[in-house]
Amino acid sequence: MTAQPAKKLLVLPGDGIGPEVMREVGRIITWLEEKRGLSFEITEDLVGGASLAEYGEPIRDEVIEKARAADAVLFGSVGDPRWNHVGFEKRPELAILKLRQELALFANLRPAKVFDALVDASTLKPDVVRGLDIMIVRETVGGIYFGNPRGIETLPDGSKRGINTEVYTTSEIERVARVAFDLARKRSGRVCSVEKCNVMESGLLWKEVVTDLHAREYQDVELSHMLADNCAMQLVRNPRQFDVIVTGNLFGDLLSDLASMLTGSLGMLPSATLGAPGANGKTPALYEPIHGSAPDIAGQGIANPIAQILSFAMLLRYSFDLQEEGQLIEDAVSNVLASGLRTADIMSEGMARVGTSVMGEAIVRELDK
Amino acid sequence: MTAQPAKKLLVLPGDGIGPEVMREVGRIITWLEEKRGLSFEITEDLVGGASLAEYGEPIRDEVIEKARAADAVLFGSVGDPRWNHVGFEKRPELAILKLRQELALFANLRPAKVFDALVDASTLKPDVVRGLDIMIVRETVGGIYFGNPRGIETLPDGSKRGINTEVYTTSEIERVARVAFDLARKRSGRVCSVEKCNVMESGLLWKEVVTDLHAREYQDVELSHMLADNCAMQLVRNPRQFDVIVTGNLFGDLLSDLASMLTGSLGMLPSATLGAPGANGKTPALYEPIHGSAPDIAGQGIANPIAQILSFAMLLRYSFDLQEEGQLIEDAVSNVLASGLRTADIMSEGMARVGTSVMGEAIVRELDK
Ligand SMILES: CC(C)[C@H](C(=O)O)[C@@H](O)C(=O)O
Ligand SMILES: CC(C)[C@H](C(=O)O)[C@@H](O)C(=O)O
Repeated sequence: MTAQPAKKLLVLPGDGIGPEVMREVGRIITWLEEKRGLSFEITEDLVGGASLAEYGEPIRDEVIEKARAADAVLFGSVGDPRWNHVGFEKRPELAILKLRQELALFANLRPAKVFDALVDASTLKPDVVRGLDIMIVRETVGGIYFGNPRGIETLPDGSKRGINTEVYTTSEIERVARVAFDLARKRSGRVCSVEKCNVMESGLLWKEVVTDLHAREYQDVELSHMLADNCAMQLVRNPRQFDVIVTGNLFGDLLSDLASMLTGSLGMLPSATLGAPGANGKTPALYEPIHGSAPDIAGQGIANPIAQILSFAMLLRYSFDLQEEGQLIEDAVSNVLASGLRTADIMSEGMARVGTSVMGEAIVRELDK
Repeated sequence: MTAQPAKKLLVLPGDGIGPEVMREVGRIITWLEEKRGLSFEITEDLVGGASLAEYGEPIRDEVIEKARAADAVLFGSVGDPRWNHVGFEKRPELAILKLRQELALFANLRPAKVFDALVDASTLKPDVVRGLDIMIVRETVGGIYFGNPRGIETLPDGSKRGINTEVYTTSEIERVARVAFDLARKRSGRVCSVEKCNVMESGLLWKEVVTDLHAREYQDVELSHMLADNCAMQLVRNPRQFDVIVTGNLFGDLLSDLASMLTGSLGMLPSATLGAPGANGKTPALYEPIHGSAPDIAGQGIANPIAQILSFAMLLRYSFDLQEEGQLIEDAVSNVLASGLRTADIMSEGMARVGTSVMGEAIVRELDK
């Protein structure tokens, strides 16, 4: 048996609760090294408000290069109200936007899953969300987030005009649709493609390209189409009708947040953003919780570390094909929940309320069993 | 006392269930003429798929002119799957899009209200939605719906590129924000402005313009700002935190549909779209239910006519300042619901299920009391 090379991870905790939930992943990494013989080479760096404070920019080129060189990026969250007014060119959010664009991380996989133990945490009736398991595949390097022309211009009369451009090409649509179809094959075999083709030509092209690709290569998958406004309604009316949803950057932003809130436990949900293989032969991938930096509870040791831990489990599965280790972590999380431990965000009557690090320790202890 | 001139209404039933729910408004109009001495001059015409079938286009210029000449437009709904494939230039939806744009109907007022009798119809827990009463003010003649450049172009390699442009100017933002602030003054005095200023410059301008207008003229109203993705989440997490929401065309499309689905009774919700005074001195206004044409149940006599009837009540209030008559109709609807009558869409155990016309008749009988 030859020794596996160390897995190179770039860890970017970011702002708010990012660093404190990331610390709990550290425990899991240590456990994997000690008990499963894995070896990780970890580089950590600053992004978001933390990087603005230190370097005057939300992410340095150097960090982008480190991300490119890494096997996978584990991201916390960015966003810090103290930097709300530094201007559009220095938003903390640019850290994640630049990483997505520079590494061509085009497919954001966002599961919205209801954990049995937490079905009552939803604001929706238990009968509507029990067993919910949706995967939203959101395009993340195109659409209105990055299209040109963009900006604010001053008109002759002194008033202003704000402009953004939604652009999608055949190949951009095809590659993300492919990810959705491939995922559907491993799940319930259904894809719903979402756009506003009744109003937007970019949506019309989206629908055509997805339809063509389906006809050419994925006839075994069931494909349906839905308008984005209707999708927002259907997610509330009957979310379990969906298996995989594939959509553009902007609709995906709203719909995936909506879908995750249906579960009532945002602090539990991980995500993966996968790219196209780069010149160096690596397929870049970034993993981050769906929740934000939650500045209101940062530093209090009460944040839920599970979404960050499950993001790391996704990293093991998707970037290193370590299915067994991914499963071990996911099972440990389930068991700890079943045992009644809860952080504040998912607390309910009769359960035991714990802080961030007690939750992290409990998961490691469960792994040890 | 001089006789009031007849109120000129253009009635456009449209497709699907449009005509059958509109018929029930006819009863109410007859009642108002007979019992309240009002006089209406009604012109009816075709739009949507119905107009495509007869004239080969979703709306004729002549109909637009009639709308301009009317005191108010009562619209049903458009959309007909049989016309799904006629191409982008002949979509039934163009009827409503053209009416909005040609008449400069820029402010779409969409209430999301939970009726006490129907609190259980929601998929959300009763405790989360009881008493919910949100008003979404959506901009409807700007943004990505109408911006240029737009279209699908073929690239040198034969692949395609779809483009749409989001544009907002200071004055477009100001006039719709003004509607929201004015409404808030008559309600709970709170406005939440929604955009994606962390990603889109048009959203950044939106936020700046709303903030400036507030500082200049509406300091008595409480203003907050929220990102659109967060708003989608907050509407699910705790919808009652909102009073008036003001937002652009595309976000408004998704968020208002989402908000109305929270009520669980889409068939109950009306809307108004108000314009700027035209050259002829009239302020154009169009009233329509929030629900669509529901082709799956069209022609069966089971559709809920209440949203269309309440749209007509909004018309009386907003276009003719007939507050008393508006209230009479709204009370009649409440009382009929309290008496236990239900159409299929809002049916629940122990209630009496009725069809479209029995519901309409019951409301008129209630008006007679
Ligand atoms: C931080 C922000 C720019 C980002 C987005 O809008 O894409 C976030 O909301 C997300 O969904 O990852
Ligand atoms: C019919 C369609 C063009 C329209 C829109 O997207 O604006 C509808 O969804 C609405 O909300 O009124």
